[in-house]
Amino acid sequence: MTEQVPDLQIAIEQIKKSLEEGLHAQAIAHFNELALGDQAEAFNQLEENEQATLLPRLDVGATADLFDRLTDSETLEASENLTLERLADVLEEMQPDEAADLLGDLPPEQASQALEEMEDSEDVLPLLGFPDETAGGRMTTEYIAMRQHTRVEQAIKFLRDVSPDHEVPYYIFVVDREKRLVGVLGLRELVVSDPQAVMEDIMDPDVIYVESGVDQEVAANVLVRHELSAIPVVDEQKRMLGVITHDDILDVLSEEATEDIYRLASVGAIELEPESPVRMHIRGRLPWLYLNTLTALFAAWIISHYEVIIAQVAALAVFQSVVAGMGGNASSQTVAVIVRSLALGKTSPSKVWVVLWRELVVGILQGLAVGLLVALGVWLWRGNPYLGVVVGGALMANLIVAGLAGAIIPMALKSMGQDPALASSVLVTAVTDSLGFLIFLSLAGYFLPHLF
Amino acid sequence: MTEQVPDLQIAIEQIKKSLEEGLHAQAIAHFNELALGDQAEAFNQLEENEQATLLPRLDVGATADLFDRLTDSETLEASENLTLERLADVLEEMQPDEAADLLGDLPPEQASQALEEMEDSEDVLPLLGFPDETAGGRMTTEYIAMRQHTRVEQAIKFLRDVSPDHEVPYYIFVVDREKRLVGVLGLRELVVSDPQAVMEDIMDPDVIYVESGVDQEVAANVLVRHELSAIPVVDEQKRMLGVITHDDILDVLSEEATEDIYRLASVGAIELEPESPVRMHIRGRLPWLYLNTLTALFAAWIISHYEVIIAQVAALAVFQSVVAGMGGNASSQTVAVIVRSLALGKTSPSKVWVVLWRELVVGILQGLAVGLLVALGVWLWRGNPYLGVVVGGALMANLIVAGLAGAIIPMALKSMGQDPALASSVLVTAVTDSLGFLIFLSLAGYFLPHLF
Repeated sequence: MTEQVPDLQIAIEQIKKSLEEGLHAQAIAHFNELALGDQAEAFNQLEENEQATLLPRLDVGATADLFDRLTDSETLEASENLTLERLADVLEEMQPDEAADLLGDLPPEQASQALEEMEDSEDVLPLLGFPDETAGGRMTTEYIAMRQHTRVEQAIKFLRDVSPDHEVPYYIFVVDREKRLVGVLGLRELVVSDPQAVMEDIMDPDVIYVESGVDQEVAANVLVRHELSAIPVVDEQKRMLGVITHDDILDVLSEEATEDIYRLASVGAIELEPESPVRMHIRGRLPWLYLNTLTALFAAWIISHYEVIIAQVAALAVFQSVVAGMGGNASSQTVAVIVRSLALGKTSPSKVWVVLWRELVVGILQGLAVGLLVALGVWLWRGNPYLGVVVGGALMANLIVAGLAGAIIPMALKSMGQDPALASSVLVTAVTDSLGFLIFLSLAGYFLPHLF
Repeated sequence: MTEQVPDLQIAIEQIKKSLEEGLHAQAIAHFNELALGDQAEAFNQLEENEQATLLPRLDVGATADLFDRLTDSETLEASENLTLERLADVLEEMQPDEAADLLGDLPPEQASQALEEMEDSEDVLPLLGFPDETAGGRMTTEYIAMRQHTRVEQAIKFLRDVSPDHEVPYYIFVVDREKRLVGVLGLRELVVSDPQAVMEDIMDPDVIYVESGVDQEVAANVLVRHELSAIPVVDEQKRMLGVITHDDILDVLSEEATEDIYRLASVGAIELEPESPVRMHIRGRLPWLYLNTLTALFAAWIISHYEVIIAQVAALAVFQSVVAGMGGNASSQTVAVIVRSLALGKTSPSKVWVVLWRELVVGILQGLAVGLLVALGVWLWRGNPYLGVVVGGALMANLIVAGLAGAIIPMALKSMGQDPALASSVLVTAVTDSLGFLIFLSLAGYFLPHLF
């Protein structure tokens, strides 16, 4: 099914048309024909009322599969179309980790009612205590574990007997009698081993794991670094609690990247999409604009101290924004490199001196490269070499400031346990704006007699 | 091995110490004790001369494993420490996709010499023709394929006989006599099936695949959407060429996110890290700064037309940057949301009208929210209501411009087949700066008599 996008669009049109004509069974049939991954895409492209018509008519298993694929907020929204009884049935069929996420997102009263209504909540209950963004909150309890003395033929018989839709079909985790994790083996080793061999002999005892409390991004980085398909999650006694699979890690990494991109651009809500409701846009963006307003007015206040000389040499107003703006551009380059490298574990606050020294050298060189060119350009344009010196010199100084502030602020935030992406842009822009104007206008004040 | 970072740091110190004392065998022993994923991390933390000492002393297999884990540019750099014969041996042992990437990155003459020197290059050769950033460039040729009439017991015997380090140990791909992909099955189905069953009976014929020429990001999105562990790559006749595994997809997604973050901040080299050599910083950053200089000077040229009125009312110089800067902030919010949503397939240029309408409404509301407050603030601060009207009104207009430009420019780039992240920031900032100054100063010109 390559190039499935056109096919998918056709299927979506068929579903919409069937719904419009009241042919509900036909709409359901079209929907069920889609691959699971496409169902989520198709569902998201339906209007709200279409979703409300379709959803209660899907069978419980299909609804659970769909909910497993939707994002958490989409699942929550979709769940509002189901009765409590139906919701409980769907929760039972969902993957335990996804079900736990949905229960955590529901209003507390509704969540406890749904839990009561569920006939089999033992997979989900142990997951409810873990915060969403930790390894424990990301793991599933659906994995295959065997005791270390189990023979290969017993293991294969067990695999035949248990339901075939486990989320982790490629690893078998080996545990001792206290459920402590002692090894791992791939299904492939199981297939090719002597039926009489025991797990202990064929497993890899150097199993890589994370504790339930670690941040999901840490778990993701461990899985990526060791190129694993799944990573087991344990408690402090190394007892096996669950498994995080690579597709959950993909979600984690994608979310973390979105978060960094949004925060660097001062967007406060990672679930924001271009077509999100207006109130979500306002909620995610306006608070940051207000914060930027404050820093912009602070920079304006700095300029206001130089109104007297601007009134004498209006050309200063022409070039002040070049100095401040270029500082902003240079600093956002540095902030992006630092923030991304911190996220990927490629640098750390302990290296701040090395990084600052590098930024200082880069700042001086780029300052010279840009400053000299602009100085020359301004001299030629305005016919006054001193104005060139003031603009070029201030540019040079502000590019150095930009590199240093762009490195030190995210690193400082990180070492204080804050997200370096969160406030870096605002803080760094405030510095390059304010200092940019200050440097430029005080330099202009110094050369004032030559600027007329 | 949870919390392995402190242990890893200790191991790295031991390696460094052993190298310093000339105890090479001991350094190698420490290095070999590390998990594969940690070896790459440790290697990267060594100084260049330490790497040069260590590398030729590692055995061929260990070097190949290490090269498989390093990024492409790190591998290229490390390979300079090896003789041609040694490099050829290492290339043979590397994963074919990684070996092909390295051969592609080497200087052409050296690459062809290495290929000649290799005894067994048949895994690598077919991969050399595919561009790096396509599905074909990402795939490996190490996968397990079986004919559709193969019986389960034959398949298990085959698995026992072939070397156990295939990259895709959880799927078996089923092909017909023309090597056309006809189905897939998990190792689990193989384990639990009747030994006499044939592949055709137990395989899933609805196999999801991509063609070799599609962009790696498209392949990544297909794998993510369908939550696969690996995705087969085929030619136009649906003949099986290779497989992309989920850890390669993780690399793709991580690279693409880095690329977007860097491009949004006008950083032109995605391999840039805080500690990269100064020349790499300059190469990745300076060209964009020059481009920004041009747009900043263009904005300055616009201001220069209003020098006469600025000379009369210097307060205009105080507030012009607030208007332009806030436009820049608002537009970078919009650009971030649009670019990220385009990358994740959550919106497309076909929705431009819906998105523009949304941005218009958001722009008007945020323009009112910020504009009114700033108007009031300026009035109170400067005691001139007209100045408040000019600043607030221009702010309002520029926030609307910012939302529209921030949406339309990345969408237009995308629909022209360009990367929307690439030039959006520069272009959009140029628009909000220039129009910001223009709107503000011409509004000021209109109200000029009241501004003294």
